Amino acid sequence: LKREPIRLRDKLALFSEQWSPKIVAEANGHHIKLAKIEGEFVWHSHEDSDEVFLVVHGEMIVELRDQAIPLGEGDLFVVPKGVEHRTVAARECHVMVLNQAGTVNTGKAGGPLTADGDDWI
Amino acid sequence: LKREPIRLRDKLALFSEQWSPKIVAEANGHHIKLAKIEGEFVWHSHEDSDEVFLVVHGEMIVELRDQAIPLGEGDLFVVPKGVEHRTVAARECHVMVLNQAGTVNTGKAGGPLTADGDDWI
Repeated sequence: LKREPIRLRDKLALFSEQWSPKIVAEANGHHIKLAKIEGEFVWHSHEDSDEVFLVVHGEMIVELRDQAIPLGEGDLFVVPKGVEHRTVAARECHVMVLNQAGTVNTGKAGGPLTADGDDWI
Repeated sequence: LKREPIRLRDKLALFSEQWSPKIVAEANGHHIKLAKIEGEFVWHSHEDSDEVFLVVHGEMIVELRDQAIPLGEGDLFVVPKGVEHRTVAARECHVMVLNQAGTVNTGKAGGPLTADGDDWI
């Protein structure tokens, strides 16, 4: 087994779809994903998983019901399980997301932005 | 509760000790840590946790017994649980590490590089 580094920049170059997280690694039952986001996501929460965001390129905002957390490149934020949130980006932003394997991107909110939760790249 | 972004660069500016991982966030029973490394670490493994490395600044090598994985900025690698490894950096490298809360940096190898596993910054 030849193990390779996972180069986030190379992985990001492999897709252009927005709001469609791609899994790049698994560790301890968690998935590490990359997503390209622009505009406003739907309000949702994840009942069973905290969710970690780390901005790789650009700027985004994690909106909670009572506050907005602006994130730039190299900034990290953890949305606790059960807390309603949505992500917003004025221009395309590239973000690394960590949550438990099987976590649906839209939680129970559903809708057209619901992504395939097992999309490896 | 006013939630704040976690700025990795700001956190890195708060300490200078090498081989002394600082916890910056917790999610689903896992710790996200920052470490400054230079030189060679001790060979060890973690029996209960995969370990994720993401290079924030600089270059490092994750050595396994049968191969070496060079990582630059923005490169990620997962060492599976139970796999012997050590990290090596010719010059100081800043790395984000994710593993299960309570994971000891030196595994069962112990020795002088064993760090306090509950060192938040």
